[in-house]
This record gives sequence, C-alpha cells and structure tokens, in this order.
Amino acid sequence: MTSHPLAYAARAARFRPSGVRSVFDIAMRPGMISLAGGSPDLSVLPREQVAELAAGMIRGAGPDALQYQPAQGLDGTIEAVREVMRAEGVDAAHDRIQVTAGSQMGLQVLTTLLADPGDTVIAEAPTYVGALSVFGGLEARVAQVEIDEHGMLPDALEATIARVRATGSRIPFLYTVPTFGNPSGASMSAARREAVVEICRREGILIVEDNPYGMLAFDDEHRLPLYARDPENVVYLGSFSKIFSPGVRVGWLAAPPELRGRVQLAVEAMTIHASVVGQVLAQRFITETDWRGHVRRSADVYHARRDALMAALDEHMPPGTTWTRPHGGFFTVVTLPPGTPVDGLLDAAIDARVVYVPGSEFMADGSRADTLRLAYSFEPEHRLAEGARRLGEAIRALG
Amino acid sequence: MTSHPLAYAARAARFRPSGVRSVFDIAMRPGMISLAGGSPDLSVLPREQVAELAAGMIRGAGPDALQYQPAQGLDGTIEAVREVMRAEGVDAAHDRIQVTAGSQMGLQVLTTLLADPGDTVIAEAPTYVGALSVFGGLEARVAQVEIDEHGMLPDALEATIARVRATGSRIPFLYTVPTFGNPSGASMSAARREAVVEICRREGILIVEDNPYGMLAFDDEHRLPLYARDPENVVYLGSFSKIFSPGVRVGWLAAPPELRGRVQLAVEAMTIHASVVGQVLAQRFITETDWRGHVRRSADVYHARRDALMAALDEHMPPGTTWTRPHGGFFTVVTLPPGTPVDGLLDAAIDARVVYVPGSEFMADGSRADTLRLAYSFEPEHRLAEGARRLGEAIRALG
Repeated sequence: MTSHPLAYAARAARFRPSGVRSVFDIAMRPGMISLAGGSPDLSVLPREQVAELAAGMIRGAGPDALQYQPAQGLDGTIEAVREVMRAEGVDAAHDRIQVTAGSQMGLQVLTTLLADPGDTVIAEAPTYVGALSVFGGLEARVAQVEIDEHGMLPDALEATIARVRATGSRIPFLYTVPTFGNPSGASMSAARREAVVEICRREGILIVEDNPYGMLAFDDEHRLPLYARDPENVVYLGSFSKIFSPGVRVGWLAAPPELRGRVQLAVEAMTIHASVVGQVLAQRFITETDWRGHVRRSADVYHARRDALMAALDEHMPPGTTWTRPHGGFFTVVTLPPGTPVDGLLDAAIDARVVYVPGSEFMADGSRADTLRLAYSFEPEHRLAEGARRLGEAIRALG
Repeated sequence: MTSHPLAYAARAARFRPSGVRSVFDIAMRPGMISLAGGSPDLSVLPREQVAELAAGMIRGAGPDALQYQPAQGLDGTIEAVREVMRAEGVDAAHDRIQVTAGSQMGLQVLTTLLADPGDTVIAEAPTYVGALSVFGGLEARVAQVEIDEHGMLPDALEATIARVRATGSRIPFLYTVPTFGNPSGASMSAARREAVVEICRREGILIVEDNPYGMLAFDDEHRLPLYARDPENVVYLGSFSKIFSPGVRVGWLAAPPELRGRVQLAVEAMTIHASVVGQVLAQRFITETDWRGHVRRSADVYHARRDALMAALDEHMPPGTTWTRPHGGFFTVVTLPPGTPVDGLLDAAIDARVVYVPGSEFMADGSRADTLRLAYSFEPEHRLAEGARRLGEAIRALG
C-alpha cells in the first residue's frame, strides 16, 4: 500500500489520545475495576418509563423529532433547560440559552469564537482534561491557577492574570468547574465565588463556568452558580449527561444574547444542531418524569459510593497519602506520599485489574504525576473497596 | 446594561448567517411555500415501527443507548453504515469508518485536521453552503471549479489547481458532491469520475466526497462513489439524514485507517462522540426495517415531485429561464434570463409567500445572483406547482 498524499494541518498535532479515553477500552476488560471514567450510574433511571418516553417521542412529536430543527434548539428543550437552571437558582431568559451537542461541543464553539491561537485561557490546576483538548486543538495556551478545597485561590488568580499579561498574551476567558470540580472534587466557597467574579469583572475577563455536577450534592448547601452573580460576564455550560444521560449528547449554554446569537451561527456551521431525538428525550425526561427525584436518588448513590471509597482508601493507601473529600459529584484526587515511585504505576494497577486516570492528564504541562483521579460514580461499593485494595497493592509493589 | 468585556477571536467574523438557515423561520410562516430547505419528507417513514424501535432501544440496549460510548461509534452502528455503503457498491472495512454527529461535523473535523488558515480548498461552482461555512470558519480559502450537467470539468479542475498553486497556497483537499449535487442537482459521469480521481491522484490532492443523496436515484444508473475507485486518496462522507432522519444527527466518514484514527481523536475533543440514542435508532432502522424499501419509496416521492416542479417551471418561468434536470436528490438550480432584475427578488418572492435560497449562497465570492436553488423534496406536488407559479409572478412583477 502506497502512502497517500496527506499533509496534515499544523493544528492536527494538537489532538492527542486523552488519558481518560485511552483507558476506556482497558476499563471494559473482564475483571477490571474502573476508577477511571466519569460515567454516571444509569441503573437508577426508570428504564420502562424512559422507553415509553422514547416511543411517545416518535408517536407524538413524530417528524418533529426526526427532522431538521432550528439551530438554537427546540423551544421545548430550551424550556426544559430553564427549569433545570431554576432548580440551581438561576433564571435565564429563553434568548440566552443555546442547546449544544453536549457541553463539550459548547466549549468547542465558545473557544472557537473567543480564543485566537496564542491566547491564554486561565483554568484551575488541575482542570477537566476535555477542556484541555479543546484549548489545545484551537492552539490556545493554558495557564492554571492553584486551588484548595474551597476552590481557586484569589491571590493566585490575580498573580496569574498579571503574569500572563506580562507575556503579551491575551486572556479570552477564565474556565472553571466551580462546583464538585473535575478532577479535584473541590468546590468554590461563596466568598471565593464573589472574589473570582469580582476580579474577572474588574480585569475585563469573561468567565466560562462549566457545571455538569452542580445538582449532585451530598449536602444541603446551596452553591449558587457564578452565572447568577454576573450574567453579563459569565457564560454557563450545562449538561444532561450527569443528571439524565450522556448518550443523548445534549448540553446547553447560557450567555448574553449577542454572544448567544454568534454561538448559534457557529453551531450551525459545525453540527447544524444538536441531535433532535436526544433533545426531545431529554425534554420529555424533564417534563414528564420526577426528574428531581431521580437526581436526588442518583446523588444518594454517589454519596454512599464516595463514603465506601474513602473508607477503603483509609484502609489501603500507604501512610502519608492524601485525597480530597468532595461534597458532591464523581471524583476525588489522591496525592501519593513524597518519594512514592510513580513510573509504571498505571501499568502495575492495570496488571492488578484496576484502572484510574493519572493526575498529569489534568495539567497542561503534564505535571502532578504523583496524583491520581479516582471516580466513584460507576462502580458499586464492594468493587470500589476492592479497587482501592488493588490500587494500594500496586503502589506497595512498586515501592 | 453595560457592555461586557467580550473580544472575539479573528475567526469569529467568519461565522455569518447562512442563506439556507436564515430562511428557515420564514419558511415556517403560515401559508408560505418552501422551496428553500433541504429537508427530507419523513411522511414515508413507518412511524409506528420507528416508535417501537425507539422503545426497544431503551428496553433492549438500555444503559448502552444512554451511556458514554467509544468515540469511533458503536460497533453496531458501524456495521449498519457498512451495509448502507455496500448498497452503494462500496466495501469499507470496520476500521475505516468513523461515526460523526452528522456529516457536517465530519467535514468540520476533516477540515480542522487538514486545512491550515490560508490553504485553498477546491470545490464545485456552485457548492454546498454548509461546506463553505466550515471552510470559512477555519479560515481556509475556496477555489470553485466550473461544472456542467455531467459534473466537474476536468480541464477546469486542472487549470484551477495550477492557478491556486501559482499563488503559493496549499491545496488540502478537493471537496465534491458528485452525485445529485447540492445545489446543482448535477451528477458526475463515470468518465468524469475517472478523470477527477486520476487528476487528484497525479497531483497528490486528497478528495473529500460528500454523498448524502447518492441512494436517492430516479433511474437505475449505478453511480459508483469516487471512494470505491481510490480508497487511499478519497474520504467518503455519508449521512443518515436523507435516507432516514436528520434529527438523529448521525453521519459517518470512511477514510484510510491512519487518518480515521486522527479523526477519532478530534471527534473526542469536539463532541466526545455522536448521540448514542441517534446511533442506536439509525442502526435499528437499518437492521430491523425494510430500509431499502423505504429509500426506494422516498426516491419515488422525490421523483414525482421533481416532475411536478419541472412541469410548473415550464409553465410559469419567463422565456429564456433554464434549470438543471436532476436524476436524483433534492434540488435544481434555476438560471434567470440575462437582464432579469434580481435585486429584491427574494423579498418579492417572500411577499408572494414562496421562499427559496439565492444561488449566491453557494459561491464563496457571492456571485451568481441570477440563480436560485429550488428544493422539491419537502412540499407536495400541488404546492410545488403553486410555488413555481408564485415565483414566476414575483419575477415578472420586478421585470
């Protein structure tokens, strides 16, 4: 076979296998315990009811569910999105909502519209690996800001802004997962939210707030989205993936109307619109089922699993290991004691039939090889415990 | 309300309202006859059967239809794609197929990977407006090659290649809709297919073949896809939008495995994967219904509509008007007689309650204002006839 005459664009080199997706196949191997993917547990879904929704979607909406539709999203889906956002304390007008083919696509479109090559996006350290893929693919740089268990450190944010600006690089936006962060599990406190919003307003920096996990709280604390504090300067990214189904591939964003209109044009150019069957199914889930009850039951499941994983980490991790204790969401980040050998740890873990995502995946510079992201969302409690045991064994075997 | 501190990226200016989508809302107005959109007629679909497929999708596949899935696409969807391609005379291996969130997304991903800003994509004159949106959004230039009713003119193609190369601009690929072209309705003859494939092979230029309409032939002629002639140098874009449902937003591409692998990484970064509910529904449509019968019945409907529109154009267009007579697909392009006033024609047509897409939308330089794309796919025969009558009236009123 002769080589074909393909010459790739410069940006093609930016698309690299993500550590999250490359362990996807491994996680499917028989006997493997996956602490890797951020998959929701869908066993709580009322499956027969969803099956009826799906049939009713075709019988009732009929061609409307199968035909081309407006790029902004179906009116009914936008109204369902508004109901979900109201449950988080946000009242966003219809003309501020854009439905997207998942919030990953929303971030792709926003970054396309806002970041020139060489611009520097500010993000948390560590941050969502899929966001790093988007920024890299569009040739933007990333500057990551230190966080603690209460989220981004305002002083570190100000220092980072000053440092980036001193290099002459423009800052198109700050990207943050302020509530039950991926991978950290940390959440911004109310005081930090106020400070971050205020700093960005003062510095003229747009905030892109990614909030897939906000509804999945293990406590009663209300963590008001940044968007509600400054809707002219914050773009909100939402998703049905964690509260209903990733498979529908439906997310949304809320933005000032002028930006929202431009997003619609870019969505048209990239995907025409989000899957309509996905939109209708998500919309019917919100309007025709006890979706809040489903979210509450899901959060209870994840809460119990967090407890099981934390207890097993206590039991099986080497002395000096630390980890975040999230109050919601899917993930914790484990930091190994100084001096723990980490080269080959993932391979050793896989040999011991447990898989996770190395913490270096969540850093643009590949640092933090001594950290591990563990997901407790998908495996049941006894397997989380066994996974932690196998992981502890793999760490000890290398030491 | 203060203006927010938004500064757009340079490429943001490339996203403009498309003439196709901007008439979408107008087409929905009561009493309006739409010759504008390329919507399939879904009334031929066995709706109750599709409703059962949708319910069965959740009952049977269950979480698999609602969960995160591999970025390449579901194995079953890839096998369904292979069956569709076999019906077109193409045998593409599993590892050459990538499922995408519609073929628009496929073209977005390919162009992202292949075209640097300032590169020049070669396309037909006129070409699909959605392709122009993709190329523009990624800051690629476009050089369009003259066609006739038998497709792209090989001499014009060679001349265009030479002209582009003389400017120093790189040619990342040739984009073509060779079968029942959008908007032209023209199809490349077998001889032209051979010539175009040979020229591109010789010149080291990749071909991107967009084939959404190929199955919707009004005759028995077999138009073998370019991909079958040179699978190492042609990327094939396919879609379920015209043979099943645009609402599922599922398309695919077939490409050499190395490129296919890179496409998967870019798909992951942009959308994670195509809608799984869309994928499963499309897959079940292919495996559990008489899909070939559906396609044949659909083509019969469009055939009768083409005849009705052509007869009405004969009756109502001013003398000297010409139009293409497609042997399949959705569209014809009407060319008005020289000297016909065209300023304000679209507004006049809308006032007469008929809407179409100006031919200038399909040209990167906005030329060909004296042409009109008419779709006969969506409106029933009597409304196509009435639409042509109204259009003739609007043209005469301006003259």
